[in-house]
Amino acid sequence: MNSQLLLENIRNVLIRLEETIIFGLIERAQFKTNRVIYTPGAWPEATGQESIMGFLLHRTECNHSLLRRYTSPDEHPFFSDLPPPALPRLRFDENPLLPNQVNLNREIREHYEASIVPFICQDGDDSQHGSSAVCDVNCLQALSKRIHYGKFVAESKYREQPEAFAAAIEAGDCGRLHEMITDRATEERVLRRVARKALNYGRDLDDGEAGKDCGSPKIQPEQVVRVYREWIIPTTKRVEVLYLLERLRG
Amino acid sequence: MNSQLLLENIRNVLIRLEETIIFGLIERAQFKTNRVIYTPGAWPEATGQESIMGFLLHRTECNHSLLRRYTSPDEHPFFSDLPPPALPRLRFDENPLLPNQVNLNREIREHYEASIVPFICQDGDDSQHGSSAVCDVNCLQALSKRIHYGKFVAESKYREQPEAFAAAIEAGDCGRLHEMITDRATEERVLRRVARKALNYGRDLDDGEAGKDCGSPKIQPEQVVRVYREWIIPTTKRVEVLYLLERLRG
Repeated sequence: MNSQLLLENIRNVLIRLEETIIFGLIERAQFKTNRVIYTPGAWPEATGQESIMGFLLHRTECNHSLLRRYTSPDEHPFFSDLPPPALPRLRFDENPLLPNQVNLNREIREHYEASIVPFICQDGDDSQHGSSAVCDVNCLQALSKRIHYGKFVAESKYREQPEAFAAAIEAGDCGRLHEMITDRATEERVLRRVARKALNYGRDLDDGEAGKDCGSPKIQPEQVVRVYREWIIPTTKRVEVLYLLERLRG
Repeated sequence: MNSQLLLENIRNVLIRLEETIIFGLIERAQFKTNRVIYTPGAWPEATGQESIMGFLLHRTECNHSLLRRYTSPDEHPFFSDLPPPALPRLRFDENPLLPNQVNLNREIREHYEASIVPFICQDGDDSQHGSSAVCDVNCLQALSKRIHYGKFVAESKYREQPEAFAAAIEAGDCGRLHEMITDRATEERVLRRVARKALNYGRDLDDGEAGKDCGSPKIQPEQVVRVYREWIIPTTKRVEVLYLLERLRG
């Protein structure tokens, strides 16, 4: 089997991404919400119809596209008008996914801006617009990668019991598919691990100065757990179901 | 006194940057050295005379310059041919630094490419060129900010005993200046804290699966301590001395 479909390897990628996501959220939570950076066309002469954050996300994706980021099957761009890779294409391992159009980045971005930022950041404007946008781009890229990795999870699960999955797909039975891809014990383990990591990364580790405010408002572990429980895990599972539904249509 | 010069505030910025730097190094250490990304002109049609990493660094700085990153007195670009800010300038607190030309980014980049990457990454090429370059840009920006923060440290120390510093500066006595800015107890505390953070962030936090390889080669705490002891702290102090030497020339 393609190594990208081994559950152990998928698990390791997802564990590694937890750290990137948690640290990204901690970095963003240093700054206030700075809502102005999400307003479309707030500075039309600079960012056109895009917001400041969207402008930076777009330009970052242009750079990464030149470096062939989006030729990798586990990367999904937020924008479709990107330049082609300037570097010679790499030969990836054979792509184990079937062709599909699943890309939830539009809603990932909307949910991130409307719900995650106000949930983890203190409300207000601290003028740290550029720094906040840089953090947002890092968070969005990590969240997008994590959520779309559901495609690899789904393909791997499909191959374990192809007949049962094919029957549910052909019947268009989303509820059944959702049930088949759900592994509650694993989900609970992810949530416990995420809580431990968030506690661990958010801790102030100075010596002999207990009680001193280190000046960096960090994130609460329960906040990270809630983002995972209420949004990242369900949205990943939605990617899995959507991918499976497209799987037999191709 | 300008709040950016309060030693407590400076200390908090430096503590916060430790986390960004350590996490940045952990992220980079996932990938092999991938030396080809540091070769100037390796793909001239794509990156001109720059290396792949330099190309991405330059384009990232162009984006950040448009978002007025380099109007902030604690930011120093690696490139000088950047576009002017597209957003309206912010009114920063009065810049507490005296005008100066100290910018060690050229040597920071050289040392990072030649020494830090081979020290923290496994030697070889894993084709993760774009991902490695993205990590490099994050690391370089955090390292540059940390090291150049020495200017705020120096200005703050100068104002505590202006006569003594002025005398050493006028005599061009670098050894004396170096001695005056050195605080060995603080340096040792930084190193102990960095070791704890690196241990903490690099730990695998899975539950009930002790001994399992999590698939993410992380960094050794001693490696981070050595980077701090042998390079970050001494280079920050060099920035302090260079800033002080320029301080009375203006």
